[in-house]
Amino acid sequence: MSAYRQLEERFDRLAHLSGAAAVLQWDWAAIMPTGGAAARARQLAELDLIRHEIMTDAQLEDLLGEAESARDALDPWQNANLGEMRHRWTHANALPADLVAALSAAASNCELVWRDARASDDFAAFEKSFQPLLELVREKAAAKSSALGLSNYDALIDGYDPGFTCVAIDVIFADLAEFLPAFLAKVLEKQGASPAPLRPEGPFPLEAQRELSRTLMARLGFDFEHGRLDESHHPFCGGISEDVRITTRYDEADFTSALMAVLHETGHALYERGLPGDWRTQPVGEARSMSLHESQSLLMEMQVCRGGEFFRFAAPLMRAAFGAAEADTAFAPDNLHRLALRVEPGFIRVDADEVTYPAHIMLRYRLEKAMIAGDLQAADLPGAWREGMEEFLDLTPATDTEGCLQDIHWAAGEIGYFPSYTLGALIAAQLFASARTQLGNIGDALAGGEFAGLLVWLGEAVHGQASRYPSAELIERATGRPLATDAFKAHLEARYLA
Amino acid sequence: MSAYRQLEERFDRLAHLSGAAAVLQWDWAAIMPTGGAAARARQLAELDLIRHEIMTDAQLEDLLGEAESARDALDPWQNANLGEMRHRWTHANALPADLVAALSAAASNCELVWRDARASDDFAAFEKSFQPLLELVREKAAAKSSALGLSNYDALIDGYDPGFTCVAIDVIFADLAEFLPAFLAKVLEKQGASPAPLRPEGPFPLEAQRELSRTLMARLGFDFEHGRLDESHHPFCGGISEDVRITTRYDEADFTSALMAVLHETGHALYERGLPGDWRTQPVGEARSMSLHESQSLLMEMQVCRGGEFFRFAAPLMRAAFGAAEADTAFAPDNLHRLALRVEPGFIRVDADEVTYPAHIMLRYRLEKAMIAGDLQAADLPGAWREGMEEFLDLTPATDTEGCLQDIHWAAGEIGYFPSYTLGALIAAQLFASARTQLGNIGDALAGGEFAGLLVWLGEAVHGQASRYPSAELIERATGRPLATDAFKAHLEARYLA
Repeated sequence: MSAYRQLEERFDRLAHLSGAAAVLQWDWAAIMPTGGAAARARQLAELDLIRHEIMTDAQLEDLLGEAESARDALDPWQNANLGEMRHRWTHANALPADLVAALSAAASNCELVWRDARASDDFAAFEKSFQPLLELVREKAAAKSSALGLSNYDALIDGYDPGFTCVAIDVIFADLAEFLPAFLAKVLEKQGASPAPLRPEGPFPLEAQRELSRTLMARLGFDFEHGRLDESHHPFCGGISEDVRITTRYDEADFTSALMAVLHETGHALYERGLPGDWRTQPVGEARSMSLHESQSLLMEMQVCRGGEFFRFAAPLMRAAFGAAEADTAFAPDNLHRLALRVEPGFIRVDADEVTYPAHIMLRYRLEKAMIAGDLQAADLPGAWREGMEEFLDLTPATDTEGCLQDIHWAAGEIGYFPSYTLGALIAAQLFASARTQLGNIGDALAGGEFAGLLVWLGEAVHGQASRYPSAELIERATGRPLATDAFKAHLEARYLA
Repeated sequence: MSAYRQLEERFDRLAHLSGAAAVLQWDWAAIMPTGGAAARARQLAELDLIRHEIMTDAQLEDLLGEAESARDALDPWQNANLGEMRHRWTHANALPADLVAALSAAASNCELVWRDARASDDFAAFEKSFQPLLELVREKAAAKSSALGLSNYDALIDGYDPGFTCVAIDVIFADLAEFLPAFLAKVLEKQGASPAPLRPEGPFPLEAQRELSRTLMARLGFDFEHGRLDESHHPFCGGISEDVRITTRYDEADFTSALMAVLHETGHALYERGLPGDWRTQPVGEARSMSLHESQSLLMEMQVCRGGEFFRFAAPLMRAAFGAAEADTAFAPDNLHRLALRVEPGFIRVDADEVTYPAHIMLRYRLEKAMIAGDLQAADLPGAWREGMEEFLDLTPATDTEGCLQDIHWAAGEIGYFPSYTLGALIAAQLFASARTQLGNIGDALAGGEFAGLLVWLGEAVHGQASRYPSAELIERATGRPLATDAFKAHLEARYLA
């Protein structure tokens, strides 16, 4: 058997183990009784360990070398697959085993401490467990930097969003930092000049919300033969391609937040389902990156489902789902649409609208870079956070709970992830603008509740390409040009100021 | 590190992998969307393969030998654990890898064929895939026979119920075969002499059934911090000790069948939860055997929850759960009790009452023995089945669907399992008789809905002992004498003829 084919077999095994872990993680977050946590943690750690053993097996490196010296025998997908294998191998083998173990232990500990610290606004407690974790993440960044030939922080980004580096992100974020403050002021002024939209009055029974969610998911293309909708504390998309599971959380007093979360996660799910079947258990068959993934959820939620066309189709379904009267103008398409587009600067990232969201990300990006460079210590976070919030959004958090303790990422040792959110928003805008151009009358289709055309387009441009091309090339092939900020800015201007 | 300690570490890893597989299997049976089956099968196969690799690693054998030569350093639990490790090692290493793979493929195939064949009463289709599977199971029996020093069929039984052999089972079943037919005739005569009990009239809303199930489970001692109740096509108990998951299936027209299934599975779950925490990831800390497991479910369902005392406590809860009127005599404790004790010979094992159930088992036991001895081929099954049903229950199945195609066990390659059901019924009766004697006024407690005393007794006698002793010794320690049929017969006589 060729070296390449042997590699495929090993990566098949890794995919089965990763798939098993993905279902177990979904179960943990969605339905596991609390008493099962300790045993589940050990199961997941065991699966991690076995995958690590497979990835660091000396034979694997030999096979990679052998396969790379026989690249000519491979077709383009296989070639790309081999590249992805090497990329994973480099990440997995960059860190000494004791650093991996120390990071995992420190992150588990810090995440637990963070849960309490956030609840009780106790930054001092958090700092004590975060500072050692931060030092380990710096070690990790340094080790990956040498292995990958990237700067330390870029090496972390590469774990989530290969191909994106600070050089590119700095340009993009500088552009947004220049554009957004003045734009936000104009939006708030315009918004203040008209009466506020009406809030539909609840209660909205959970069963009706579930049913409405399922109806709209199916309409968007979600296949319940290959997926589920459940509930969890934070909405997420988990599972595997053949069995994609999304969650939301319902509020009896407000159906829109759960529903928008469902539509967002449906975007993630459609990406997973659309990955090429023949490559599902190989690295090249996986989603391209975190920013591409986020682009698919934001394209569905922000571009499609917060658009006026969508509400022409969906508002009557919402009205019917809750048995609201024809006379109830809160359910009028235009009112629901305006409600979905409220802009309001706030402290909490996950509650932010699309206009103020990038400010939250730019703040975190700035702080992450400084932390990894060694210029910012754990103890400095609250002050730097307040300063940044004042600069970016003119807000001063009164507590660390609504400041630097709000997100789980750093507590879990995840540094380098945040930029993906805003990159995803830009990609979503650029992709959707291209889809509109290339598909012609897509507005009528959306207003009629027809999403199949868009889904086919996304399937060809993004989903079905999986990791066949680097992100930049994927975006350029899909949209005809490199990623830029203009589509996002044009989208915001058309939506909020037109 | 001592050889014994190294073995514990390896078996810890095996337990984590088995626990992961158990949750994935639960998910499959309870909630997985159908489209996820193929990927899930590959995940489970991968986990099997890794466990097989660990169990057949040459070092493991060396460690076992080394630890066995230093037994003096071990305490009694460790010693018993080492014995269980060796027992598992012997089973896992008895079969050549190609036989394991062939068995697994043939069983998967036959199980799939069986689903359709049962639905369409197509024995010919089943036979074609079962005969080759049967031949592989015979090979397996022969291989295990040499490894274990047991007869071929005993070697299969040993995989489910170590310590039980045909010599003992033959004696027990001969005794029951002599007792039951005349007993059954008397029960049917007595039953026919009184008016039939009333059936409560539905519909019984599923949510009310779920709530009632949860209430009674909690009362029996089920801890929802460490477990769940869900729904599946066939009721079962899955998951792991720290996270025990039982399922049932609801029928809007009849709440009793789902509820009795819940109480049965709760017995299994309480056993799992009661296993000793310190030994949970070691072989000695697992449930003793299939017959002991079944004894715990049958003790709860048959001995406790179909008893008159239980209905004094539970009937008012059932009435309240469905909002039945005081005047509705169908909900009177005595009526519900009589309904729970209806005896009626029938074709289907899983629907059988406790009086006719052993006949179903004795038939299967006879046929299994003959199949493994090579005296009965797949093609002979329908005839042998009809003959046996006529002999044991005086019934002639009109189709194979209600005959030899009704159970999944053989189609899945599981031969040697069936005796555990009836052994479990005998153990349950003998244990419960001892509990009644030793606990004194247990009847009042049960009638008052107090099950804690019984649970403590079971914990000390059975649950907390896990696999510390062989089954026979465990039963003798708990009840003061070897397993016999008299307690079961006395139970039946007291319940049905007194």
